[in-house]
Amino acid sequence: MTIKQLIEQIKKKKSFLCIGLDTDLNKIPSHLLNEKDPIFSFNKAIIDATHHLCVAYKPNIAFYEAHGVEGWRSLEKTINYINKNYPEIFTIADAKRGDIGNTSKMYAKAFLEDLNFDSVTVAPYMGKDSVEPFLTFKNKYTILLALTSNQGAFDFQTQKIDEEELYKKVIKTSTTWSNSENLMYVIGATKAEFLADIRKIIPNSFLLVPGIGTQGGNLKEVCKYGINENVGLLINSSRGIIYASNKEDFVDKACQKAQELQSEMEEILKNVF
Amino acid sequence: MTIKQLIEQIKKKKSFLCIGLDTDLNKIPSHLLNEKDPIFSFNKAIIDATHHLCVAYKPNIAFYEAHGVEGWRSLEKTINYINKNYPEIFTIADAKRGDIGNTSKMYAKAFLEDLNFDSVTVAPYMGKDSVEPFLTFKNKYTILLALTSNQGAFDFQTQKIDEEELYKKVIKTSTTWSNSENLMYVIGATKAEFLADIRKIIPNSFLLVPGIGTQGGNLKEVCKYGINENVGLLINSSRGIIYASNKEDFVDKACQKAQELQSEMEEILKNVF
Repeated sequence: MTIKQLIEQIKKKKSFLCIGLDTDLNKIPSHLLNEKDPIFSFNKAIIDATHHLCVAYKPNIAFYEAHGVEGWRSLEKTINYINKNYPEIFTIADAKRGDIGNTSKMYAKAFLEDLNFDSVTVAPYMGKDSVEPFLTFKNKYTILLALTSNQGAFDFQTQKIDEEELYKKVIKTSTTWSNSENLMYVIGATKAEFLADIRKIIPNSFLLVPGIGTQGGNLKEVCKYGINENVGLLINSSRGIIYASNKEDFVDKACQKAQELQSEMEEILKNVF
Repeated sequence: MTIKQLIEQIKKKKSFLCIGLDTDLNKIPSHLLNEKDPIFSFNKAIIDATHHLCVAYKPNIAFYEAHGVEGWRSLEKTINYINKNYPEIFTIADAKRGDIGNTSKMYAKAFLEDLNFDSVTVAPYMGKDSVEPFLTFKNKYTILLALTSNQGAFDFQTQKIDEEELYKKVIKTSTTWSNSENLMYVIGATKAEFLADIRKIIPNSFLLVPGIGTQGGNLKEVCKYGINENVGLLINSSRGIIYASNKEDFVDKACQKAQELQSEMEEILKNVF
């Protein structure tokens, strides 16, 4: 998918919502546990009910990997289902990978080519040659961890190097890498006020913003500091939507929560487009 | 496995060699491609031929994940084969994971409990709450990326925070985390001279040292600066051993390369125990 197509989807759906598929057998409705593949059944139901309200889905790879071979099968079925039925949706493999060059290349191929995700999240700690192999895929995106939504972000990410925080150094340095136009960034919603400074460095980049809802982030605050003329934001909500109910009405409740966020976004977009 | 048992194995085998199982269908002998599970067949042959020369195996998870469901099946078979037939071997899932708390918990369970690896490599960028979930497993180890063997290590890891390099800050900070006695660290062999400083911070910790051989690291240099009274080093070699030949003699050649490293280590150990 191209960035242009993503922006068109945002305009069309009046939404920049990303729904996180952190699908956990301990949290999904118990009646689904009798299905042959409960994780896929749950995802399919959520996707069919919410695809018109969001522009992206983000399976959190850990939740699939936790089930080994069966989990990978559920992941494959989920991404194939989205790509086949809702090709307009932007897909994010939330994998947070990163390794030496030849290994990063394997991860990149796995997520961007074989599974055919539009994008993958990557950790920056190992530097340029650990990230660049992800950037070589055309019309595919690497979403670099910059400032994450958790408390541990303050351990290293906000520490100062040459009077500038590490996460800013990461962002600035990454803009010099080959094919850096294929970069997006993870910026946690719990640190919305940091977005003003971040926009000075990367005014045009798309930001994936986790942490709305359960983790305490606020949509209006994030948009106040982070929105740009193309929106430039994908706001993720996972648990707040997909686990709105763990009963038979889970689809309706998830749809309702997604609808609430989409409505808020529609209001905000009136000031953008 | 306990650290004590690991040290006993090092003494018994006169080796602190870790063999990296970066098993790549493009590099293994072509006659194996006719097997039902070429990756497992290759690993089994390498393991059977070298287990007496090394104390650890380290499957590089990317190489398995690259093959989706089938790759995960090969990984499961490999770890189960080692655990069943060579339970004295220390196993490392080279996964370089790291995410917010509830997600890190899923990764930790997948590698340390379900797959039953002795250890897993973890990236530090997201800080304390992204690593601590890995540390809660008894007699299991979290091998934190500190100073990696690649060129990109100089992008951020060696940058100074308060007049001290980021990787040192990572190491020092990590020693304050809950269950930090379950930490080991990745220190690249290509930066052997940094080991003297690192040993001042963590004199007793085990270090996993990649980068010997193909990447240019030198065993004697690493030991000169990094060895401690319990050895405290696991020296990894992957491609240099497992791809010593891509013909029918691959097992003999791998065994020979592993033997050469073990002999060097035996010499070095004469000055330790």
